[in-house]
Amino acid sequence: MREVFQQELAEVQERLVEIAALVEISIQNATAAFNDSNISLAEKVIAEDDKIDRASLALDELAINILARQQPVARDLRIVVSALRISASLERMGDLSEHIAQLARYRFPDKVVPKSLRGTFQELGQLDVAIAKKLTELLKTENLVLADEIRNDDDRIDELHVGVFDAVLGETWRGAAVDTVDATLASRYHERFADHAVTIAKNIQYLATGEYVGSAV
Amino acid sequence: MREVFQQELAEVQERLVEIAALVEISIQNATAAFNDSNISLAEKVIAEDDKIDRASLALDELAINILARQQPVARDLRIVVSALRISASLERMGDLSEHIAQLARYRFPDKVVPKSLRGTFQELGQLDVAIAKKLTELLKTENLVLADEIRNDDDRIDELHVGVFDAVLGETWRGAAVDTVDATLASRYHERFADHAVTIAKNIQYLATGEYVGSAV
Repeated sequence: MREVFQQELAEVQERLVEIAALVEISIQNATAAFNDSNISLAEKVIAEDDKIDRASLALDELAINILARQQPVARDLRIVVSALRISASLERMGDLSEHIAQLARYRFPDKVVPKSLRGTFQELGQLDVAIAKKLTELLKTENLVLADEIRNDDDRIDELHVGVFDAVLGETWRGAAVDTVDATLASRYHERFADHAVTIAKNIQYLATGEYVGSAV
Repeated sequence: MREVFQQELAEVQERLVEIAALVEISIQNATAAFNDSNISLAEKVIAEDDKIDRASLALDELAINILARQQPVARDLRIVVSALRISASLERMGDLSEHIAQLARYRFPDKVVPKSLRGTFQELGQLDVAIAKKLTELLKTENLVLADEIRNDDDRIDELHVGVFDAVLGETWRGAAVDTVDATLASRYHERFADHAVTIAKNIQYLATGEYVGSAV
């Protein structure tokens, strides 16, 4: 029984890594579509989000199934419950990536943000992609150094996010209302994407150390 | 054992109703603070969000504890897992309500949105409050008519949300960039608040009917 359970936990972990890898591809394509006004890439992201949703739903079913059959307790139970939470966060990261792609599609053939903000959004995009890669690796290896790195990347994203508002509300901003709306939403999506990664990293840290670091999901 | 379990499920349900009632107060105060530029009400919402976070965390611990001790299967298991999901959504609704209050605080003593949009945000606020009330009642009574009503209210919110973008991007918009940013964010927060309520309503519908209606959380 115990051995079967360990196999099933390994299966859960593998599936989480698979979903994280899908999210990684999604954010890579979404930010490229966003920064380069690449409509076909944007459409690819939008079309493929369904894959992430289905994989997340299937993982939830597996986790509930394990709870029912294996009746885990203590740390084992927390691993399965955490898998449900991580699955929900990954699914949401896919949605946010899709939102970024949707902005690129709406404004095509124009770029979403005016020149003055392009550098900021390039960095935001690179950081989101880096975070997604680290998250996949963290889920695979449970190397907690990656959790700290994700938090540091998120701190930088928060700075950039504040910088977008400073730019948009500053005296030199010449953007039209549509630029202001797009920059506001795009910045928010990039920032929320990273927030979910931090939540997942906290979940993994908690499982590894038993030390709870906040956040209800 | 079975009787103890039923008591514990009743306790979980009561706690969910309590958290939903806190969210109801929060969104009532947040939307009033937002529409009337009431700074003390805004600060109350911000200060009290911690109550929702702690109640949600405590409920999660109770639910995990029940899973460990009672080892529920089939429908009972799904009730407990759903409680974890509903708890996460309620916690997030509290955050969004807090964000609405924060916008009111930032702009005080000014109003957050210009005159032309005030009617729209009054309606958005009323709908969010109505949804929160229906959600508390739905959690208490499992009367599925309320789930349908929540979806209908959410459809209207989506219309209003699109209307905000139409206004901001329209030719008659004279708002400054700060008005555009605020309207964009405020509309998004109101809309996401309702989305989470719909997700919870779907969870409850699923439990009552066994029929799954999508969404991973």
